[in-house]
Amino acid sequence: MPELRKDPITGRWVIISTDRANRPMDFVRESVKIKGAPHCPFCPGSEGKTPSEVLAYGRNGSGKDTPGWSLRVVPNKYPALGIEGGLDREGDGLFDRMNGVGAHEVIIETPDHNHTLATISERGVEEIFWAYRDRMLDLKNDRRFRYILLYKNHGEPAGATLEHTHSQLIALPIVPKRVREEVDSAKRYYNEKERCIFCDMIRQEMETKSRMVLENDHFIALEPYAPRFPFETWILPRQHSSAFENMPTPYYKSLSKIMREFLNRLDSVLAFPSYNFVVHTSPIGEEINDHYHWHIEMMPKLVKVAGFEWGTGFYINPTPPEEAARFLREAK
Amino acid sequence: MPELRKDPITGRWVIISTDRANRPMDFVRESVKIKGAPHCPFCPGSEGKTPSEVLAYGRNGSGKDTPGWSLRVVPNKYPALGIEGGLDREGDGLFDRMNGVGAHEVIIETPDHNHTLATISERGVEEIFWAYRDRMLDLKNDRRFRYILLYKNHGEPAGATLEHTHSQLIALPIVPKRVREEVDSAKRYYNEKERCIFCDMIRQEMETKSRMVLENDHFIALEPYAPRFPFETWILPRQHSSAFENMPTPYYKSLSKIMREFLNRLDSVLAFPSYNFVVHTSPIGEEINDHYHWHIEMMPKLVKVAGFEWGTGFYINPTPPEEAARFLREAK
Repeated sequence: MPELRKDPITGRWVIISTDRANRPMDFVRESVKIKGAPHCPFCPGSEGKTPSEVLAYGRNGSGKDTPGWSLRVVPNKYPALGIEGGLDREGDGLFDRMNGVGAHEVIIETPDHNHTLATISERGVEEIFWAYRDRMLDLKNDRRFRYILLYKNHGEPAGATLEHTHSQLIALPIVPKRVREEVDSAKRYYNEKERCIFCDMIRQEMETKSRMVLENDHFIALEPYAPRFPFETWILPRQHSSAFENMPTPYYKSLSKIMREFLNRLDSVLAFPSYNFVVHTSPIGEEINDHYHWHIEMMPKLVKVAGFEWGTGFYINPTPPEEAARFLREAK
Repeated sequence: MPELRKDPITGRWVIISTDRANRPMDFVRESVKIKGAPHCPFCPGSEGKTPSEVLAYGRNGSGKDTPGWSLRVVPNKYPALGIEGGLDREGDGLFDRMNGVGAHEVIIETPDHNHTLATISERGVEEIFWAYRDRMLDLKNDRRFRYILLYKNHGEPAGATLEHTHSQLIALPIVPKRVREEVDSAKRYYNEKERCIFCDMIRQEMETKSRMVLENDHFIALEPYAPRFPFETWILPRQHSSAFENMPTPYYKSLSKIMREFLNRLDSVLAFPSYNFVVHTSPIGEEINDHYHWHIEMMPKLVKVAGFEWGTGFYINPTPPEEAARFLREAK
């Protein structure tokens, strides 16, 4: 019998449809394989093919926009938003608009074209999270912005247009709808119970154990109770922490460890799937709070999503999260 | 300069990113072409390959589950939900679950494998909408259900697994999140202004004209102000009408006309794209109201949607709706 489950944070119901395909290999469509690209604009020596860098790590004396870096952040060459100008908010009858002002940047995670995030060294992954933080802190000085979104598309089916491993950042003058919903819902829960709903969920999941995937000193990785997608996984700090960019220094190493370990298990169980992840953190100006708990939502790209889901907010997931968790726990 | 626009009903902001590809031919990936299938379970003569029919039109004396029909509705052979049993709602700590009870049916729109919804006769398309109504009215007698979702996936990239043109219906014991949000938001607007927000929008769009695509005696087709996708189109009754299944008889013919005309223009402008549509109507038990206005949301499958959108509820649309509307208006 399929099951209907409700996500306690967003209030979204999903169907966990146990009668359909659910073994990991039923999903595999296309493994992400690095083929190499002779004219890759993200490789060392091609720095001139990207807009001028806004951040680089690892240089020992080499100049801006030249080789020698271990990580590099550049503006997106085809940005979705423009960095110049005012917001010019205005109404048009029923409607509201403003200028598409924002920042759109690319974090080139390593100079080595042959790596994926799963194969970069632990220290290298830690650097990526430091770069996220540095860019967030810098962009928060711009008073036009209300939210900074960090995300990664891995593999062409997940929307990556360049093979060289990278993440992206968009700074926005609005808070995205789904983040706003999560924060508001967590706030209502807190107002009622004076507890963080994510902290409560983490406590329950650590007792139940059936949806736990990994844990280390500061983080856990778990399959949420009502996942939209097969093998959807959340990585959360174990202790309450409301903003990614404010996490204590020792957390960077822990996050790097759990991310690498998780991705290697995912690659093993699902044969190098494409995936997306997004960082959900508190909006700018609300960073310090007791109700919202920042986390990473990881979504392997395994099933075709139709307009049905867009039109309804309703998801059919063929894999119970308890089974996905077991596969990931048992993976080597 | 890109623009940020807010949908007045859902409160969702989208980026209309004018600097990116936006001419219709920039999107074309794969035209939906009917290839034919020798063992199609939806073709006449193969009635035994589907579960037994729950509705058929056009029979002149031929028996159940035999050829002779012009339209046929059958339970989905691989249903996402099970029709038997009670809901058994229960809590599990923080979480809520219930049995996956529901109906999942397929509307086989025509016996002719070579048709698409765009090429079926006007009378044939009208029959499809009558079938939607008949199945809704029947399923509403089941007190376990709160919502009936009608939708169509056209073409493999949009999630259709069988080529023979068909729509689907899911009866659910819950109201899907996005529908709930729309209804609640429309209700808040009504409580404040004593007007339907959709009626206000229609009035404004018919004056502005720039986003209008088609109109006839009872319906209009328009590009919404803040569309998530290129060429996203809504078809709405011009006069307030809160429930699809309660629309007056003459509306069926009008809806059939505007749907056919719209799909033919879409095929012409975008070279036979795959698409999804969903019918948004009032939840069961709230059918008669002054605040919600039923409509069809049509979403051509033109761009790759990444986890970014899933994780944020934030969309980047490369085609301004005014341009899409112009292409569709000028199409022959």
